Amino acid sequence: MFATFLRLALLLALALPVVAATDPKALIEQYHRDHPGKGKFAGHWQPIPIQRYWNPVDFYEPPKTVQGKVGRDQCVACHQGVTPGFVKAWQDSTHAHLGRIRTLPDSDVRAYKKKLLAEVEANLVEQGLLKQGEHLQQVGCIDCHGGVGKDKIRHDKDLRLPDRAVCGTCHVQQFAEAESEKEQTWPQGQWPKGHPSHAVDWKANVETAVWAAMAEREIAQGCDQCHYQQNKCDGCHTRHSFSAAEARQPEACATCHNGVDHNEFENYLLSKHGTVYQTHKQQWNFEAPLKDAIARGGYTAPTCQLCHFEYQGQFSHNLVRKVRWGFNPTPAIAENLDHPWFQKRLDAWVGTCSQCHSPRFGRTWLETADKGILAGLKVEQEAKQVVQKLYDDGLLPGQKTNRPAPPAPAQDAPGGFFQLFWAKGNNPSRVERVYAEMWEHDLIKLYKGLVHANPGGYTYSEGWSPLLRDYTEIMDENTRLRAEAKTRLAFLPDSLRLADTDLRLPLGAALLVGGLVVLGRRK
Amino acid sequence: MFATFLRLALLLALALPVVAATDPKALIEQYHRDHPGKGKFAGHWQPIPIQRYWNPVDFYEPPKTVQGKVGRDQCVACHQGVTPGFVKAWQDSTHAHLGRIRTLPDSDVRAYKKKLLAEVEANLVEQGLLKQGEHLQQVGCIDCHGGVGKDKIRHDKDLRLPDRAVCGTCHVQQFAEAESEKEQTWPQGQWPKGHPSHAVDWKANVETAVWAAMAEREIAQGCDQCHYQQNKCDGCHTRHSFSAAEARQPEACATCHNGVDHNEFENYLLSKHGTVYQTHKQQWNFEAPLKDAIARGGYTAPTCQLCHFEYQGQFSHNLVRKVRWGFNPTPAIAENLDHPWFQKRLDAWVGTCSQCHSPRFGRTWLETADKGILAGLKVEQEAKQVVQKLYDDGLLPGQKTNRPAPPAPAQDAPGGFFQLFWAKGNNPSRVERVYAEMWEHDLIKLYKGLVHANPGGYTYSEGWSPLLRDYTEIMDENTRLRAEAKTRLAFLPDSLRLADTDLRLPLGAALLVGGLVVLGRRK
Amino acid sequence: MFATFLRLALLLALALPVVAATDPKALIEQYHRDHPGKGKFAGHWQPIPIQRYWNPVDFYEPPKTVQGKVGRDQCVACHQGVTPGFVKAWQDSTHAHLGRIRTLPDSDVRAYKKKLLAEVEANLVEQGLLKQGEHLQQVGCIDCHGGVGKDKIRHDKDLRLPDRAVCGTCHVQQFAEAESEKEQTWPQGQWPKGHPSHAVDWKANVETAVWAAMAEREIAQGCDQCHYQQNKCDGCHTRHSFSAAEARQPEACATCHNGVDHNEFENYLLSKHGTVYQTHKQQWNFEAPLKDAIARGGYTAPTCQLCHFEYQGQFSHNLVRKVRWGFNPTPAIAENLDHPWFQKRLDAWVGTCSQCHSPRFGRTWLETADKGILAGLKVEQEAKQVVQKLYDDGLLPGQKTNRPAPPAPAQDAPGGFFQLFWAKGNNPSRVERVYAEMWEHDLIKLYKGLVHANPGGYTYSEGWSPLLRDYTEIMDENTRLRAEAKTRLAFLPDSLRLADTDLRLPLGAALLVGGLVVLGRRK
Repeated sequence: MFATFLRLALLLALALPVVAATDPKALIEQYHRDHPGKGKFAGHWQPIPIQRYWNPVDFYEPPKTVQGKVGRDQCVACHQGVTPGFVKAWQDSTHAHLGRIRTLPDSDVRAYKKKLLAEVEANLVEQGLLKQGEHLQQVGCIDCHGGVGKDKIRHDKDLRLPDRAVCGTCHVQQFAEAESEKEQTWPQGQWPKGHPSHAVDWKANVETAVWAAMAEREIAQGCDQCHYQQNKCDGCHTRHSFSAAEARQPEACATCHNGVDHNEFENYLLSKHGTVYQTHKQQWNFEAPLKDAIARGGYTAPTCQLCHFEYQGQFSHNLVRKVRWGFNPTPAIAENLDHPWFQKRLDAWVGTCSQCHSPRFGRTWLETADKGILAGLKVEQEAKQVVQKLYDDGLLPGQKTNRPAPPAPAQDAPGGFFQLFWAKGNNPSRVERVYAEMWEHDLIKLYKGLVHANPGGYTYSEGWSPLLRDYTEIMDENTRLRAEAKTRLAFLPDSLRLADTDLRLPLGAALLVGGLVVLGRRK
Repeated sequence: MFATFLRLALLLALALPVVAATDPKALIEQYHRDHPGKGKFAGHWQPIPIQRYWNPVDFYEPPKTVQGKVGRDQCVACHQGVTPGFVKAWQDSTHAHLGRIRTLPDSDVRAYKKKLLAEVEANLVEQGLLKQGEHLQQVGCIDCHGGVGKDKIRHDKDLRLPDRAVCGTCHVQQFAEAESEKEQTWPQGQWPKGHPSHAVDWKANVETAVWAAMAEREIAQGCDQCHYQQNKCDGCHTRHSFSAAEARQPEACATCHNGVDHNEFENYLLSKHGTVYQTHKQQWNFEAPLKDAIARGGYTAPTCQLCHFEYQGQFSHNLVRKVRWGFNPTPAIAENLDHPWFQKRLDAWVGTCSQCHSPRFGRTWLETADKGILAGLKVEQEAKQVVQKLYDDGLLPGQKTNRPAPPAPAQDAPGGFFQLFWAKGNNPSRVERVYAEMWEHDLIKLYKGLVHANPGGYTYSEGWSPLLRDYTEIMDENTRLRAEAKTRLAFLPDSLRLADTDLRLPLGAALLVGGLVVLGRRK
Repeated sequence: MFATFLRLALLLALALPVVAATDPKALIEQYHRDHPGKGKFAGHWQPIPIQRYWNPVDFYEPPKTVQGKVGRDQCVACHQGVTPGFVKAWQDSTHAHLGRIRTLPDSDVRAYKKKLLAEVEANLVEQGLLKQGEHLQQVGCIDCHGGVGKDKIRHDKDLRLPDRAVCGTCHVQQFAEAESEKEQTWPQGQWPKGHPSHAVDWKANVETAVWAAMAEREIAQGCDQCHYQQNKCDGCHTRHSFSAAEARQPEACATCHNGVDHNEFENYLLSKHGTVYQTHKQQWNFEAPLKDAIARGGYTAPTCQLCHFEYQGQFSHNLVRKVRWGFNPTPAIAENLDHPWFQKRLDAWVGTCSQCHSPRFGRTWLETADKGILAGLKVEQEAKQVVQKLYDDGLLPGQKTNRPAPPAPAQDAPGGFFQLFWAKGNNPSRVERVYAEMWEHDLIKLYKGLVHANPGGYTYSEGWSPLLRDYTEIMDENTRLRAEAKTRLAFLPDSLRLADTDLRLPLGAALLVGGLVVLGRRK
């Protein structure tokens, strides 16, 4: 009954347009309302200066070095000398030459931008920022750093760094698409609403306990360097080119999507997809919009963008409509893969693969990947029990004598996420750290290697073989820690079995002496 | 006497043409006869659906979704809508436009394809697949997926995925070259005939015990994703471009030749060769055939292909005529490097290096590399003895209590290859896994780093320094496991020692008798 | 007082031209005088054949295969057949076509080479190697391999491989700039004069104890493959193209600046800088000199070269004028960061960043990086004490029974650099090796990740998280080794305990008292 209702609801949702027509002002207000600022752990940390650039709306203050009002024409004139690099980037950008768009012949792959520009103008008219019939000539510094259409700002007071909403003032459709990621709702509550997604990545960042707990704020802000897509658009469209062609290349994703717990870029490059990309990309035209990537861009293999921006044949800035395993494989997902929510997303992926592969190949691959992930999850879950039991039995080295609690709001737990970023004394113990890497590195890489079809990425270099290595270490440790405990148990007097304490030596010596005295007296 | 004979035999072999003129049909028949199918461990595993794509001849069945006959012209018409990506790749390929080859001016670097096309036509005439004097206009879908020259096939019955022999029907010379790798014979039996090579990589795959033994078939098939060159040609010439220019770029090798046990691609990129490639490749023309790579392609450094396809000044698809250390350094190779078989191959390598370096430099480098590999092998062999002795003495953690045997056909052995892909309980122990990585990762990387001249690849990042790290861990473990064993022996009561050593009975008895004697005397 | 003097001295130094006008001959003589040859450990090692190519002045001898005199025109004629690759590289080089430079229009980005060529000619005139008013037409093989302007050399006697001074004969300014790195003097003696720099990297190499000590010379020479910039210029300007455009691309630095203890290249590629480089470089013109990189080369992000060749707005081959943390973070640097020497360099860096970023952003980032490095250093220093104490207490596994000394001139020390490249028996112990990697890999990567702004490079994939992993292992080992020692103390006969702990006295005394009591009573 409930399942039927759910199916109906899903079908309805499917029938709705991808993103409903949006009122720009309402969208911007909603965006600001949703923004978490410092988040629920605000009491535990203070921003450091660099963070003014990762979350400007909350932390940015203009520099006091330039006082008074500056006009539209003064920005470039002055900054050309002070900071020539970013001026040059803007000068070569589309923002600096909107007129060139209007004269593009329809045969040009960039001709789609004519329609986009008209939409931008309509959006501005709707917001009263452009007169009806007026044409934008340029998006200048002041439009973003002061306000669209402004002529003058006070450099030391009004200067702002643009957030998503500033970009969204013109690019309403793209902003709305990106913000719609917040609607994602997991059927069994595997993740909170909207998570994981770019649209809430700052919230995810500041509400991670160990991030807020870390005393080393200069290290912690390294997380912000990626987890700021919720705040700004230049994570993909690097300032001050803001190039769509740049953002369509896999390297645009690489700064964040690499490394020990999300090695998507490495997997892509080493997959057959990446091979074709690297050997043919000089013949591809990244100016083509994604919908024309194959027909007009000449793609003969996918980029990150071609698969992840696609959903049921449409391309948008909502990248989470096909998310299934999320950030990491867990039992709560594994046990529900036959739920319609997951099945529908699997079907959508088959459609994605069918851009280039037969639907049967696509489905077969996706099912292979699922089963491979399940195999890894099984090993990881077995190891988890072993580590938990060591903790419950109090057998971890130093557990009773030298295990400081992590700083608030982080909380102690064996093999917890915090143990990858905080350590003191015997917290974590070695075996816990191994387990933390097992679930947070090996298993995720296994999953990412499989879904990106990089053979070495899930069999031997990353994934399965490292997962078994960590399993091996955990089992070895378990055997030895338990054997050590037995040794202590059998030969120490009961009172000395506190195992790790410094009291056992003097105590043992005293007992020995006492025993000898008693024996002597017996005679 | 025997050596003289061998020398003569080698000289004779050298005098023969690289690949004898070949009868296409005989070649194809031989290929099919040689193919191992499921291999000698067939009883231990069952194919899963994805494997129909890795070994189509044995496992592929056409989908039942499209019934009835389809004609030559229908393929593109329908698949353009269903799977536009692969259609586009074909449309931009040489296969789709054979006529363009015939009109190439001789000054074009691709003009060599005119001769190749004429040979293809001659091959087809010889096989009765083309009329004398007729010209191929196009290689269409149906030619490969149904049969050369076919007009109609039953989509649900006749559709096939091409294997090597299908490509070899037209490309006879290249097929014969590639198949000739099977002739490789190691002088002291270091490897079975034909191994290691692309030509028998599927056989090597399915006849690897742990691969056949693994319960996780979705992980195991990851090996197939590279080990299918014996089955298909699209490992290098990606469908449906089948581009020779793509296959001449180093990235074409990267999907398989990377990672923990064969990091050739990483070594190449980080070598001086790779630097030159990466900084100059935009000026190189990969359409030039390898023989013209320097003179007309503009190469100023080697690619993978320029060295590995070359043998005594000729280029072919037989890549193993200079193989010396094979997949991994072993004593059986190390001890025979002065044998003529190895010496001749060293000489051939000097010729390869001399494409760009003085012969003296080439020989000096190769001899340096050999000695460096020998140095690594010595360390690895010392560690091997230590681990073997721990196993023989029964001192590995859990060895007597929790060491399940690996599933058949894999067999237990300390530090065995299977331990990289299977683990349960205390099999492997930690020290064995370290050793398995030592011989299978560190030592191989040392070797690959040296022969590809990547300085960090054999000194500190990979190779020597990690090899010593693993040596350190093994020696540390050895010392501790033996100390623990002594402690147990000397101070544990008999009942607690039961699991640990064969000495327990006599020693226990001696201690018991001694104790009773002392007590008796005291009274 | 001293500080004021220092400030004045610094200001004076700043006022001086970057490199004083130089007498070419004096410069060359000084270069040869400074060269260490085999260095202070010369008695400990002998060169192997390959080293003739890394340090030709000291080790090269011409081959005897070609006897007698050869003339200027014979080189190419013969080598075109023998070693076509390097001939082709030269033929496509600027050296082969100096005339083309003279006809470049001033609008060409390469027009700056006209001035360079005139300077080269003036330099040669000054040295009597070119007649006044004569024009160089070509730099041929013989000019570098025999002597500028020579017509004939004896191939088996006179042939030389060029060193820095040979290149510097023509390129005096660049040679002088590069050599000026030797002037670097650290204010608190953190590094010897000139170190670390390319200008003394061969000296640094041969005067590293473990390098000289290693029996495996074929491995040790791997260090030379990068540490030869002091000897030759083709580390960046690969022979025989000697291309400036090549040397301006980040990949030119990659062969040496990658890997476990200086992963600059990886950090660059994964930073936002690298993303922009990779997605836009096809539109950049690397023929533009660095000073025109933004304005005329079209750079919209930095390369390695744009930041590291720059100093106060000028570009030169002295790369160490902004060095602050050097090769690795140490307390001696950390404690002096507010010294004017370091502050001035910080200011210079702010100028560098300001090529593209606001000065405030630049300074904020650099201060963030400093604090992040200090956080890592603190963890590393704590671990260092723990390992040192284990060593001092004699508790390392096998320390008393199986710890061979490293070969001379290396000297034993817990967690020393030598332990990354040499191991025997229980030297190093596992915990030492972990610590060696902590200070030599993790901490350096943390630093490099921060200063190159690669988020994953200092938070989780490299840097902080691996640093904590090694901290965890060290603390775990410490707890266990000390517990084991105590166990031995309590239950082993006294004679076995003598070596192991400070508690032996009280315990021995207690046992002694007990024994006396028993003996006394017995009577």
